[in-house]
Amino acid sequence: MKRTYDSLTKEEARIELEEVRAAFEAWKAKGLKLNMARGKPGTEQLDLVSGILTVLQTPGQCVSDGIDARNYGELSGLPAAKRLFAEILGCRPEQCFIGGAASLTLMYDTISKAVTHGLLRSERPWSREEKVRWLCPSPGYDRHFKITESFGFELVTIAMTPEGPDMDAVEAAVKDPSVKGIWCVPKYSNPDGIIYSAETVERIAKLRPAAPDFTVMWDNAYCIHEFEGEYVPFPDILSLAAANGNADMVFEFASTSKVTFPGAGISVMAASEANLAYLTKLLDVQMISYDKVNQLRHVLYLKDKTSTLALMKKHATILGPKFRMVLDTLDREIAPLRIATWQRPTGGYFVSVNTRPGLAKRTLALCKEAGVVMTNAGATYPYGVDPNDSNIRIAPSLPPVAELGAAMEIFCLALRIAALEQRVSD
Amino acid sequence: MKRTYDSLTKEEARIELEEVRAAFEAWKAKGLKLNMARGKPGTEQLDLVSGILTVLQTPGQCVSDGIDARNYGELSGLPAAKRLFAEILGCRPEQCFIGGAASLTLMYDTISKAVTHGLLRSERPWSREEKVRWLCPSPGYDRHFKITESFGFELVTIAMTPEGPDMDAVEAAVKDPSVKGIWCVPKYSNPDGIIYSAETVERIAKLRPAAPDFTVMWDNAYCIHEFEGEYVPFPDILSLAAANGNADMVFEFASTSKVTFPGAGISVMAASEANLAYLTKLLDVQMISYDKVNQLRHVLYLKDKTSTLALMKKHATILGPKFRMVLDTLDREIAPLRIATWQRPTGGYFVSVNTRPGLAKRTLALCKEAGVVMTNAGATYPYGVDPNDSNIRIAPSLPPVAELGAAMEIFCLALRIAALEQRVSD
Repeated sequence: MKRTYDSLTKEEARIELEEVRAAFEAWKAKGLKLNMARGKPGTEQLDLVSGILTVLQTPGQCVSDGIDARNYGELSGLPAAKRLFAEILGCRPEQCFIGGAASLTLMYDTISKAVTHGLLRSERPWSREEKVRWLCPSPGYDRHFKITESFGFELVTIAMTPEGPDMDAVEAAVKDPSVKGIWCVPKYSNPDGIIYSAETVERIAKLRPAAPDFTVMWDNAYCIHEFEGEYVPFPDILSLAAANGNADMVFEFASTSKVTFPGAGISVMAASEANLAYLTKLLDVQMISYDKVNQLRHVLYLKDKTSTLALMKKHATILGPKFRMVLDTLDREIAPLRIATWQRPTGGYFVSVNTRPGLAKRTLALCKEAGVVMTNAGATYPYGVDPNDSNIRIAPSLPPVAELGAAMEIFCLALRIAALEQRVSD
Repeated sequence: MKRTYDSLTKEEARIELEEVRAAFEAWKAKGLKLNMARGKPGTEQLDLVSGILTVLQTPGQCVSDGIDARNYGELSGLPAAKRLFAEILGCRPEQCFIGGAASLTLMYDTISKAVTHGLLRSERPWSREEKVRWLCPSPGYDRHFKITESFGFELVTIAMTPEGPDMDAVEAAVKDPSVKGIWCVPKYSNPDGIIYSAETVERIAKLRPAAPDFTVMWDNAYCIHEFEGEYVPFPDILSLAAANGNADMVFEFASTSKVTFPGAGISVMAASEANLAYLTKLLDVQMISYDKVNQLRHVLYLKDKTSTLALMKKHATILGPKFRMVLDTLDREIAPLRIATWQRPTGGYFVSVNTRPGLAKRTLALCKEAGVVMTNAGATYPYGVDPNDSNIRIAPSLPPVAELGAAMEIFCLALRIAALEQRVSD
């Protein structure tokens, strides 16, 4: 039975550090190159959906609801694609705008237009506000934070709890009229894998922000992405917000990036019809339409929610063992030492490890030395700065299970070295 | 032999008007519905390229230059797609950023980023400039003008000549440091179908604008779009600009919208490597990458410039008769009356008719009465206002030749009515 690192004397810690370093050097000598940096599906998952390459073959198939998907037009997307996403998200097809391979672009463009033109309920374009503040539940998704940082907003860190963002803090923050919005990944949050509780979702829907154009960016990226157990139903934020007089407060996003091909999927922005009518006028200046032929491929291939969930079960058979490998290794190698904690997600694409303060950067630097690339330390916090230097995001989806085993061995040794170095130099 | 309308007495004009109206009413009674509003390819053209639907079928084919097109990554696009566009445009692959179904989006995003962040050589974001002026050679493309109008720029009309924009006016205008750019469709200009002369292109490449971040938006939309005769080579603006110390002044755009599918093509932004490096940093916040699987479909289907030009010849066999129908009808019905002039393009997607002043709106209103929808009068000028109410853009690509014949009969009658009404009420 291993002892907790706290209980070691300095001398014991020094001896342990030497042993762990020796094991680490042995791994280093193998010169591995392993990547757990991003939530990138592995080749097996890509091969799983090869059928989408050949699902649309003839001109006759290209007509959907009387619309020729091959030609110009239909800015907001094919009705059939709207129906598919509406069924998955539990909203109405009229609330859906269909995008291209990255829902991130729909998010960026929404905020970009808020800056240059203002949103439906804005008093002026945000570029003419003296200051724009934005709530960032953290740890969170670095690409979200970068969008709002890129436009010069002041990022306000909100703590994450096992129920979602700290809603007391959110409710207090939105009293400031310069606070214009919040990033949310409500189901299997990035990186913790937390599902917002019913109470959290309701409190968000009921917010009474001072800014009339306060915007909830509801990135439902993992809405059907269980890798363990059955599909977990989740409330439709749009109708909840509407029922609370906040119909125009929420923009919801999702995509097929982790359903079909990450580099060639389709995405959706769901919002009130008033919001879509307003934004569509602005989007009409920016584009003709996203790729409708690819929308049609997805409609023909995924068919409906039932059939899409069946496909997600197949993804789960590939992803499940990878996540179990990560969690089992952490349980075996790290849990007894009491130097880190983590959630046990059953969906999403990440495991989020919170080390003792001050260990994340050093752990990842060691990993890099041994050829294991992970998301940069700090990336999950606004401005890339984790105030506790503690959060590490593990993305187990890309490497095959065997490689993942090696990467996790290296990771655990690196974390132990970092903890022991700290203990020794106390 | 018809008489020119100028030579008619008022009484003769009144009699002619009655006759023409009778003929027009007969057409009206048929209740036709014909659309010549946009440069939309017809079904025959879409069917021509059905091969692209099945060109990519297996996972093994999805790897290009070692990159799995199905997965995340490669923000600027597949190297093979860059090589294809570089060969077509005569620039270098490193100068190409590959976009989605609409090059318009790449144009919009470039200008949007100039507004929010500034371009490579900007002293500040354009949102912080007191005034931004933009040169609009007119008649021109309404969607171009709308982008710059949407960001609140002041649109400055520049006259078009048969050689391209009036370069004396352009050279004078760029002395104003608030003039930040110009829209250009250099080959088969929209709507006139004019090819900029070598001298015009050279004078553009040699501009000495007062604004350090003056930007030429070079929309080479019809770079390989001859519908009559052989492919017309055209200079590479990027190397010309670079040779004149203006390497970072030009952004060039093109797409396959009228090569493969208008609703599912790929596009390119070509610019100096310094410009691309700068913009790519900003674009990295907005997106992961455009659809690389569709880029690969295009690479496999179009292969290279020679093979793409061969495909364009097939498009020409469909488009040629449509344009000849338009031009022949104008020659027969309108030319003898001396109430309008037009260019005789051999490529592009439009015929641009300049009526006597004051006839365009009335002509198009009459067309609409008879079920013929055309681009709105004024659309080809900044703010949608044609100062002479004279320019009408005809888009012959969508209707089959037989329908086009009917539509042109109606158009010519409508134009004659408008001219005769004006003559009678003189």
